[in-house]
Amino acid sequence: MLKKKDQYVVAVVGATGAVGAEMISILEERKFPVAELRPFASGRTAGSTAQFDFQSVAVSILEPKAFKGVDIALFSAGEDVSREFAPAAVSEGAVVIDNSAAWRMDPDVPLVIPEVNPGRLGVHRGIIANPNCSTIQMVMVLHPLHRAAQIRRIVVSTYQSVSGTGKDAMDELLEQVRALLSFKEVQARAYPYQIAFNCLPQIGSFDSAGNCSEEIKMIQETRKIMEDDAIQITATTVRVPVFHSHAESVNIQTESRLTPNEVRAILSAAPGIIVFDDPERKLYPMPIDAAGKDAVYVGRIRQDLSVENGLNLWIVADNLRKGAALNAVQIAEHLVSQTRPPDRLS
Amino acid sequence: MLKKKDQYVVAVVGATGAVGAEMISILEERKFPVAELRPFASGRTAGSTAQFDFQSVAVSILEPKAFKGVDIALFSAGEDVSREFAPAAVSEGAVVIDNSAAWRMDPDVPLVIPEVNPGRLGVHRGIIANPNCSTIQMVMVLHPLHRAAQIRRIVVSTYQSVSGTGKDAMDELLEQVRALLSFKEVQARAYPYQIAFNCLPQIGSFDSAGNCSEEIKMIQETRKIMEDDAIQITATTVRVPVFHSHAESVNIQTESRLTPNEVRAILSAAPGIIVFDDPERKLYPMPIDAAGKDAVYVGRIRQDLSVENGLNLWIVADNLRKGAALNAVQIAEHLVSQTRPPDRLS
Repeated sequence: MLKKKDQYVVAVVGATGAVGAEMISILEERKFPVAELRPFASGRTAGSTAQFDFQSVAVSILEPKAFKGVDIALFSAGEDVSREFAPAAVSEGAVVIDNSAAWRMDPDVPLVIPEVNPGRLGVHRGIIANPNCSTIQMVMVLHPLHRAAQIRRIVVSTYQSVSGTGKDAMDELLEQVRALLSFKEVQARAYPYQIAFNCLPQIGSFDSAGNCSEEIKMIQETRKIMEDDAIQITATTVRVPVFHSHAESVNIQTESRLTPNEVRAILSAAPGIIVFDDPERKLYPMPIDAAGKDAVYVGRIRQDLSVENGLNLWIVADNLRKGAALNAVQIAEHLVSQTRPPDRLS
Repeated sequence: MLKKKDQYVVAVVGATGAVGAEMISILEERKFPVAELRPFASGRTAGSTAQFDFQSVAVSILEPKAFKGVDIALFSAGEDVSREFAPAAVSEGAVVIDNSAAWRMDPDVPLVIPEVNPGRLGVHRGIIANPNCSTIQMVMVLHPLHRAAQIRRIVVSTYQSVSGTGKDAMDELLEQVRALLSFKEVQARAYPYQIAFNCLPQIGSFDSAGNCSEEIKMIQETRKIMEDDAIQITATTVRVPVFHSHAESVNIQTESRLTPNEVRAILSAAPGIIVFDDPERKLYPMPIDAAGKDAVYVGRIRQDLSVENGLNLWIVADNLRKGAALNAVQIAEHLVSQTRPPDRLS
C-alpha cells in the first residue's frame, strides 16, 4: 500500500510514448503532488528529456533497480515491459498503475475506472490495472445504465484513432497522406496496410475463432469492471484514419425498459460524462471535438425498435486521456486521497 | 415495357456527378448495346462533355421533352430531379432506372438488386428504383443467408466513404486534408463539420426519433427487397474520411444455426460476392481494395457468442459501382435480355 506523504516520487515508464507524454502533462495539469518525476524509456528514446513543471527532466533507461525510492509507477510501455518490470517496481515498494494488458485479467489485480469501481482500489498487491481505452469509454457510459436497468447484451462497433497505436502510427498516417497527395508510394509499418483514407477491421492480433485481441479485451474487461459475467457482449473493432479519439456505435438491450430521455437524465447525472445529443440541431459527439478533452461524450441516444428494450448510443472520448493517461492519473489521485493525512483545516 | 431492339438510346441524368460518370463508364465497360448516349445535367454543369465510346458527347440541360426517343433513362441527380422528370421520361416512352430515394418505397415501383430479386423486373409502370448504396451491399450478402437460415435481427454500423455524397464531397475531403497539412483554416460545405480525420455520425437528415434518413432507408429497403417485414433491423450510419467504398459491421441473428464455415460456403456460391476471410493471414476486405471493383467483399465472418445463432460479418463494396451505377446498369441489362430477340445461333 502507498505510504502517506505530502508529495510522491512518481515514475513514468514509457515516458516518450504517446500515452506516457500525456501522463506527464496530466500530472502537471491536475497538480498531482509530485515530489520528483522520474521518466523512463527504452534504449531507443532514453537520453531525451521530458518537460515537467517548467523543467527539463532527463529520460533514463529502464532497469529493475530504477524504482528505488519510487512511490507510484505509471507504466505505459507495452505488455512485455510491464510483465518484466512491474514486479521489480512493486518489490522496491512502489505501487504500479499499469496501462498495458499484462495484468488486467489477473484475479488479484484490480481493474479500475475511478468513476465506476473506485472501491476496488482498497485491496491490491501493488499492481493496479488501467483498462483498455475502448473499454473505458464504453463502460463509463454503460455502467450507470446497467445499474438502472441491467444490461443483457451489448453489440459494439468501434471507430478507433491511430493515437491508440502510438506516436509511430500518428506519424505514419501523416506520412501516408503526404505521400498520396504528392503521388508517392505509401509505406506501411505501424499497420499491415495503408491506414490513410482506409478502414482496417483489425486491432491487435486474431484468435482462432477470428476475433481480434481488442474485441476480446472489450468483452472480458467490461465484465470484470461491471462485475457481471452475465452481460453478453460482441465487438467489432476497426481502425479509422483519425488522429485522436475513439468513437463507438453501441447497441444495448436492457432487462427493464429505459426511454432515451431517461438515458439522458441518468447519464447527465453521472460523473465524467457529457450528454451531447441534439441531432435536429446537428449536435452529436465527434472525434475532433473530443480530442484533448477529459470527458466521455455520448449522443445519438435512440430507441432501437428491433428488439425489446433496445437502445443505440454513440460514444466518443479522447483515447489518450480518459482512455489511458487521465484514467491512470485519476487512479493515482484516489490512492493518494485514501492515504493522505487528514486535512488540517477540517 | 421496353421494346425489343438491337441497340438502345440511353439517357444519363446527372451525367456530370460521381454516380452519373460511373454509369457512363460502366455502360462502356460492359458493352451495353447503346445506339446513342444522351447525357443530361443541371444548368451548373451542362455544356461540358462526357466521354463515351472514344467520343466526346455534349452534356445537355435537362428539360421534360428531352426524353423523346429515349429507351432507357438512368437517373442519378437527386430526389427532386427524379420526382420532377422521371414521370416525363416515362410518358415519352422511356423506362427509368432511378438511383434516388424518390420512388424506392412506392408500392408500384420495383426496388431491385439483380442478384437478389430480378423477378421483380417483370412488372413495372416505367420506373424501377435502384436501392440505397449501403442497403445494396448488405442485402447482397444477407439475402443468401436469409434464404438458408432466416434472419431475425440485423444490427449494422456503417463506415461510409465521401464518394457517396458526390464529387463536391470528394473535393472537400482533399481540400481539408491539404488545408490541415499547410495549417490553413478548414472549410466545410458538403458536410456540416470537418470530415478530414473525423467521423460524422450523420448521413442524411434526422427524424424526430433521432434516426438519420440513411438509417431508415437501410431498414425499409432491406425489408422491401428481401420481401420480409418480420426482419428486425437497427442501423447507425457514419461518414468516415475515406474516398471510395463503404464498409459495414453487420451483426445478425438467424432462426436456425449457421456456422462461419457454412456462411462462407453459402456466400462463396452466391453471385457477385467474394469471400475474403483469412484473418490469421491478415486477409479481410478494406475500402481501398474494393474501390473500382464490381464485387461485394465479405470477411471477418465470426460466430457471435453473445446471442443464440449470432454472426458477425464485415462487408465492403465500392458504393459508386455495385452500390449505385453498376447495379443500375445491371438492371438495364436484365430489362434488355428480357426483351431481346431470341439469339440467332440457338
